[in-house]
Amino acid sequence: MSTPIRVTIWNEFRHEKKNEAVKKLYPAGMHATLAEALKKRPGLEIRLASLDDAEHGLTEQVVSGTDVLIWWGHVAHSEVKDEIVTRVQKRVLEGMGLIVLHSGHFSKIFKRMLGTNCSLKWREAAEKERLWNLEPGHPITQGIGDYFELPNEEMYGERFDIPTPDKLIFVSWFEGGEVFRSGCCWERGHGRIFYFRPGHETYPTFHNENVQKVIGNAVFWAAPRIIQADSCPNYQPLEKIAPKDAQFGKAGVLQESKL
Amino acid sequence: MSTPIRVTIWNEFRHEKKNEAVKKLYPAGMHATLAEALKKRPGLEIRLASLDDAEHGLTEQVVSGTDVLIWWGHVAHSEVKDEIVTRVQKRVLEGMGLIVLHSGHFSKIFKRMLGTNCSLKWREAAEKERLWNLEPGHPITQGIGDYFELPNEEMYGERFDIPTPDKLIFVSWFEGGEVFRSGCCWERGHGRIFYFRPGHETYPTFHNENVQKVIGNAVFWAAPRIIQADSCPNYQPLEKIAPKDAQFGKAGVLQESKL
Amino acid sequence: MSTPIRVTIWNEFRHEKKNEAVKKLYPAGMHATLAEALKKRPGLEIRLASLDDAEHGLTEQVVSGTDVLIWWGHVAHSEVKDEIVTRVQKRVLEGMGLIVLHSGHFSKIFKRMLGTNCSLKWREAAEKERLWNLEPGHPITQGIGDYFELPNEEMYGERFDIPTPDKLIFVSWFEGGEVFRSGCCWERGHGRIFYFRPGHETYPTFHNENVQKVIGNAVFWAAPRIIQADSCPNYQPLEKIAPKDAQFGKAGVLQESKL
Amino acid sequence: MSTPIRVTIWNEFRHEKKNEAVKKLYPAGMHATLAEALKKRPGLEIRLASLDDAEHGLTEQVVSGTDVLIWWGHVAHSEVKDEIVTRVQKRVLEGMGLIVLHSGHFSKIFKRMLGTNCSLKWREAAEKERLWNLEPGHPITQGIGDYFELPNEEMYGERFDIPTPDKLIFVSWFEGGEVFRSGCCWERGHGRIFYFRPGHETYPTFHNENVQKVIGNAVFWAAPRIIQADSCPNYQPLEKIAPKDAQFGKAGVLQESKL
Repeated sequence: MSTPIRVTIWNEFRHEKKNEAVKKLYPAGMHATLAEALKKRPGLEIRLASLDDAEHGLTEQVVSGTDVLIWWGHVAHSEVKDEIVTRVQKRVLEGMGLIVLHSGHFSKIFKRMLGTNCSLKWREAAEKERLWNLEPGHPITQGIGDYFELPNEEMYGERFDIPTPDKLIFVSWFEGGEVFRSGCCWERGHGRIFYFRPGHETYPTFHNENVQKVIGNAVFWAAPRIIQADSCPNYQPLEKIAPKDAQFGKAGVLQESKL
Repeated sequence: MSTPIRVTIWNEFRHEKKNEAVKKLYPAGMHATLAEALKKRPGLEIRLASLDDAEHGLTEQVVSGTDVLIWWGHVAHSEVKDEIVTRVQKRVLEGMGLIVLHSGHFSKIFKRMLGTNCSLKWREAAEKERLWNLEPGHPITQGIGDYFELPNEEMYGERFDIPTPDKLIFVSWFEGGEVFRSGCCWERGHGRIFYFRPGHETYPTFHNENVQKVIGNAVFWAAPRIIQADSCPNYQPLEKIAPKDAQFGKAGVLQESKL
Repeated sequence: MSTPIRVTIWNEFRHEKKNEAVKKLYPAGMHATLAEALKKRPGLEIRLASLDDAEHGLTEQVVSGTDVLIWWGHVAHSEVKDEIVTRVQKRVLEGMGLIVLHSGHFSKIFKRMLGTNCSLKWREAAEKERLWNLEPGHPITQGIGDYFELPNEEMYGERFDIPTPDKLIFVSWFEGGEVFRSGCCWERGHGRIFYFRPGHETYPTFHNENVQKVIGNAVFWAAPRIIQADSCPNYQPLEKIAPKDAQFGKAGVLQESKL
Repeated sequence: MSTPIRVTIWNEFRHEKKNEAVKKLYPAGMHATLAEALKKRPGLEIRLASLDDAEHGLTEQVVSGTDVLIWWGHVAHSEVKDEIVTRVQKRVLEGMGLIVLHSGHFSKIFKRMLGTNCSLKWREAAEKERLWNLEPGHPITQGIGDYFELPNEEMYGERFDIPTPDKLIFVSWFEGGEVFRSGCCWERGHGRIFYFRPGHETYPTFHNENVQKVIGNAVFWAAPRIIQADSCPNYQPLEKIAPKDAQFGKAGVLQESKL
């Protein structure tokens, strides 16, 4: 793991430009608001990237120099180029952390990493959300008590179409009557993935102290424990292999290349 | 679940045409050999498909009429069209079962479903493999005792780059000194996935009675428990939502479409 | 699996004798009410047992003749004898199904099977509970739609101190603001365990059609797939072991008994 | 987490007193050998305890002052008092780490934490064991390459009767033909548990550098992330509960004590 942890906050950054209400909440973009919050934590080096940057701001150099990538997208998932998604996926499997926020549940990268539809029920009614902490000992929930509340959020309801999380750390209660697995951890390849539900663009969620705390904690949790390139090696035997019938080839003699 | 279970056995079907040794073992293709074996089990309706068929034999009609898809591929993974992979993935998430054999670990569909590289160590030395049964109560291991052996197989060794299986049912011991998670179960969407390691084309593995038994058992295990199309519904509240500050919209009033 | 499935419904059966309100709801006991409901499903053979029966109604003969054991307890957990708990645990590990209801979360058998405290938040306020179905394809949720409601229930809230369930199938929303993992599946040994949250004695929960349906489904899901006694065998080698230095004993010669 | 991490190494400490061969390998006991090895790692404060100490060396004070408990037992599992096992279990659930070695698979504490029989196949033939590293990114495998070998060990073979590990990090290959899940991680309550297979008393396993490294790594991994006493609180509603029918009590009024 590098010191400091190099964080890239990726934001689609479209709502903030077009929607006055969103612009008012996040004048420089949600990623900038998050960056301000994360800067308060020592040990992080933060960079911003967004959809309309060249290569979406995720050049080979940026991705290979990122320890933890935070992702927010919504209306323009389809504009993210497949080759960039492949680049990010490759890096996560090598060990980079990935934190996917809110409507990023439908991003190409999240669906690519998990293999499922990642669909859910939803409603925009500015309703109350209460996130219950199921894992008080988990690094991501440090400083969060039994629960925290957001007075106005979009509702996401189950069934959330995801693989069973390795660890489920938050479950949300919604004013309108639904529940949701709001904090989910997975490991894929050598990388760690955290999905965190809150963060609708029309609400001041990313100004919320607990939301900032969770995302900050998640950055430390998701930081690489190892970075290791993929390989599929032809491997020499460690033990003697008995002589074989000629039909199937000689013992221990490698017969053709795989790739 | 339909009665009978409609099984499609997909085979790349290239080795059998080009390699004399493989042709001798599987004159009509490995899929045909498997079909012969599966026909002995009542309740299955079996169809064959292969890479060089139109749409790889996996038309919309075939896929939507398949309960369990068995997949063997090796040298031509890259020739499988992405839109067919997407079609199959969609169907698995709706509930279709997927059984991936041996070198199918590197198939597009397997990597798509799991999100990882699915890489491993490998060696072709006709060596002995012994598959240990970790779950004697699992439907897939019925009729298999503590273990079974294959006198000649390709070696696959750990680390196998997969998400932690929901259930690990076989672990292989190899003569040359390696181990491998040889029988792995996952659920994705509404579908079930089983990866089964043995099955190298130059060995008579698919003529082996235990291999046939495991694959047959897996068909019954993976048969759909439900078929349900994906949706991401805008959902009306079940409880009264308190009036909200005008800044964030009225309670319970849905404000924009998501998709 | 035996045909029919032999179900034993175990009830502490104390509240129904002492509390008029409970007696009115369940004149013959909650177990009797459940038995009436389950009798409507073909293929089940149902027996009742309760705390004040000899050996709590769980003699060696009863336990070894039970395929699925349903458990409800509350005020008298401590009166259940440890040797009976050991007997039941042994049978679950051999393959018997175990369904634990509501306040059974604090029963000796549940804590024994899981190894954790199984504690939670709670409140008796006759409030509304809505159980969301996370796994529409799971056998236990068949016939249940997206959710079902109970107008009056005790509240159980997270953190529920349990091992991560193998499969989480229901999450509850409570009127008073909490959430709970209400339907949890585990496998232990060869047996299957299902915890189902609802069922407070002062409410007519076990008369609820959906509750009955879930419990009935769970019986079929938890029915033994295998019954296999525990063993820890001294095992002969399958491969030749090379001669060893005299210091550590001869190859393949077993040196002392383990048990 | 305390600084330094307070480690208690518990050893049954019987073989070393009675068996000359064992005494020669471990003159002061296996726990003392391990302590020597662990002392090389900064940040650990190490204490020894054994079966024949008062309260097995695990007084309330010792247990509450332990961050990580290492456990080795074999012939005298049954002599460990149940109340001490209960004390240790309580502390693990509060957050203490537990590392169980080799024949500790049959210890009361391990079976108590996991709820299963923890049985396996076994053979003492001084054979070769090769432990394959499945999780190169896991803290416990740092400094271990793809695998490491032990020239002489007891064999343990599958099926190992344990709950599916949260994370499987080592799988062993044995000269005699078996495989085993040799490094298994679980979380229970707030505590972490690591089972590590090697360590038969008649072999110099605890002098092996890789074994020492793994156990040392595991101590850091298992160190408490939180220490939190169990509770099952009667909880006040966070939302207004609608007035209820008199039959079931008034909204939000707590009606009887649970415990």
